[in-house]
Amino acid sequence: MARTRTYTWNDPRELDKLGRGMDGLEFTRHLLDAGEEGRMPIASTIGFRLAEVERGRVVLVGEIGEHLYNPIGMVHGGVAATLLDSAAGSAVHTTVPAGVGYTTLDLTVHYLRPITADTGAVRAIGTVLNRGRRTALANAELRDSADRLLAHATSSCMVFDQP
Amino acid sequence: MARTRTYTWNDPRELDKLGRGMDGLEFTRHLLDAGEEGRMPIASTIGFRLAEVERGRVVLVGEIGEHLYNPIGMVHGGVAATLLDSAAGSAVHTTVPAGVGYTTLDLTVHYLRPITADTGAVRAIGTVLNRGRRTALANAELRDSADRLLAHATSSCMVFDQP
Amino acid sequence: MARTRTYTWNDPRELDKLGRGMDGLEFTRHLLDAGEEGRMPIASTIGFRLAEVERGRVVLVGEIGEHLYNPIGMVHGGVAATLLDSAAGSAVHTTVPAGVGYTTLDLTVHYLRPITADTGAVRAIGTVLNRGRRTALANAELRDSADRLLAHATSSCMVFDQP
Amino acid sequence: MARTRTYTWNDPRELDKLGRGMDGLEFTRHLLDAGEEGRMPIASTIGFRLAEVERGRVVLVGEIGEHLYNPIGMVHGGVAATLLDSAAGSAVHTTVPAGVGYTTLDLTVHYLRPITADTGAVRAIGTVLNRGRRTALANAELRDSADRLLAHATSSCMVFDQP
Repeated sequence: MARTRTYTWNDPRELDKLGRGMDGLEFTRHLLDAGEEGRMPIASTIGFRLAEVERGRVVLVGEIGEHLYNPIGMVHGGVAATLLDSAAGSAVHTTVPAGVGYTTLDLTVHYLRPITADTGAVRAIGTVLNRGRRTALANAELRDSADRLLAHATSSCMVFDQP
Repeated sequence: MARTRTYTWNDPRELDKLGRGMDGLEFTRHLLDAGEEGRMPIASTIGFRLAEVERGRVVLVGEIGEHLYNPIGMVHGGVAATLLDSAAGSAVHTTVPAGVGYTTLDLTVHYLRPITADTGAVRAIGTVLNRGRRTALANAELRDSADRLLAHATSSCMVFDQP
Repeated sequence: MARTRTYTWNDPRELDKLGRGMDGLEFTRHLLDAGEEGRMPIASTIGFRLAEVERGRVVLVGEIGEHLYNPIGMVHGGVAATLLDSAAGSAVHTTVPAGVGYTTLDLTVHYLRPITADTGAVRAIGTVLNRGRRTALANAELRDSADRLLAHATSSCMVFDQP
Repeated sequence: MARTRTYTWNDPRELDKLGRGMDGLEFTRHLLDAGEEGRMPIASTIGFRLAEVERGRVVLVGEIGEHLYNPIGMVHGGVAATLLDSAAGSAVHTTVPAGVGYTTLDLTVHYLRPITADTGAVRAIGTVLNRGRRTALANAELRDSADRLLAHATSSCMVFDQP
């Protein structure tokens, strides 16, 4: 039986333009406060949103649904990777001043427990471990509502002056 | 300005049930031949499909669109991770006999070039590097239409008898 | 000018035999208490030793010297990898009962600061993040005497009944 | 029973000084041709040497011995990490012009088969996968004399103008 889903998002160029005038912490807080309005497209597509923002630490909440399934009966590993990458990257973002950009260099994910529609809401907690001059290292944990660790990631980002 | 997208997928439990009666190569070829019918939910959500399947090697094609953007003006890193995880995992899947399952243990992604809506279609090529008794190692490359490497991944899977 | 170094170690088969009669925590504590006598060969070759052992957490101390240099004026990246792998693996070892073995599946190292002979003693702190039935995930930090993070690793191990 | 080993190496500052006047390919070839004289300290400590050098690809040969053992009856995982890091890093080194340095950002190792003193000589083959303006990605394979894959690594390096 086929299922249908309809969803909306906002022009990501407007978000990007807005972000260039703010430092990363201010911008990420703006996205948090804007709620649905501030949702980046991928967050609407997958189904996650910012829940907590402070300097060096960001929490996302993901809503697990059948639209995220792989063909072997569970949520696709790319979903955990997306939430973890987002949490780690956003945590790094909160440490960059205005006029400075960042880009993810690498992401390493370890999968610990299967995720299914029964898992319910999940939280991805991203934390900066080290903020160097040109790179930053962060980790991220994906946890279920019983606080069990579902997946874990480390990620490094490059930090650079924006053109 | 808000955008809206509507899409459909099929009950993933039917795919999973079907898969348990086939070996992994047969099942992955079935998904390829079934086209839209065989699309797993996440493939409809993100926008990718199987393009080539042989033992130990699988190619996916992804359609990049604005629905995959992050708030800093490019495609979210989780999208490359999803395509690479799928390609690597599917390549491993083609090596497992009927009654044997697999699950991803880890995924390491390196991001080499930004992906934008202008990138057009991308290909993810997954290849098994080593097939041990209990684990398998695969890599995957994400390439644009000019065959430039956009991102690269290695992934290991655990192989186990299905309950 | 050529330098010469002479060092000693003990038959590793004796250590291995001893370890098979103990659980992992008991064995790792035995190695700590035995001091020079309990040094595994690689620890003598590189120059590190156990400093703290508890269930799920192990600290190693490494002595940095010129014998660890690469040809571009600093300590070779393999040295940090060795200390981090040892710390993470030993932390996992403290969680396995007698008759159960473990082996490292993967190790991901991020290098944050160069290490030179001036760095002095370094500490590698390994901590178990998750202990599943068949796998365990640990991280490890390499820190200098001023507690600055020099390198960081995550590692997963497979846990299995010994033959 | 205690074993003793004595070995020698050369002042690494002389190698580093020499390297700064050459491009990376020239320097790595110089180290190959110099044989024992060109051995970096870590290569003497662990026991490996350059065997093949071309632009973007380097092969090392390692001599496995008891001095590399961990306390659980096999070669320590740090040894494979050291050989793989060296092969990947040296391959990147062959792509940098004079006056330009490189440093390893990250290393991900997958362990596929145990290595023991019976393994004999091993080869580490490093290959550059992508050479960007500021970073380079390489992989490395560790193979035994029967060409079986023992371990596999990917590594990214940062490339920068030397001070």
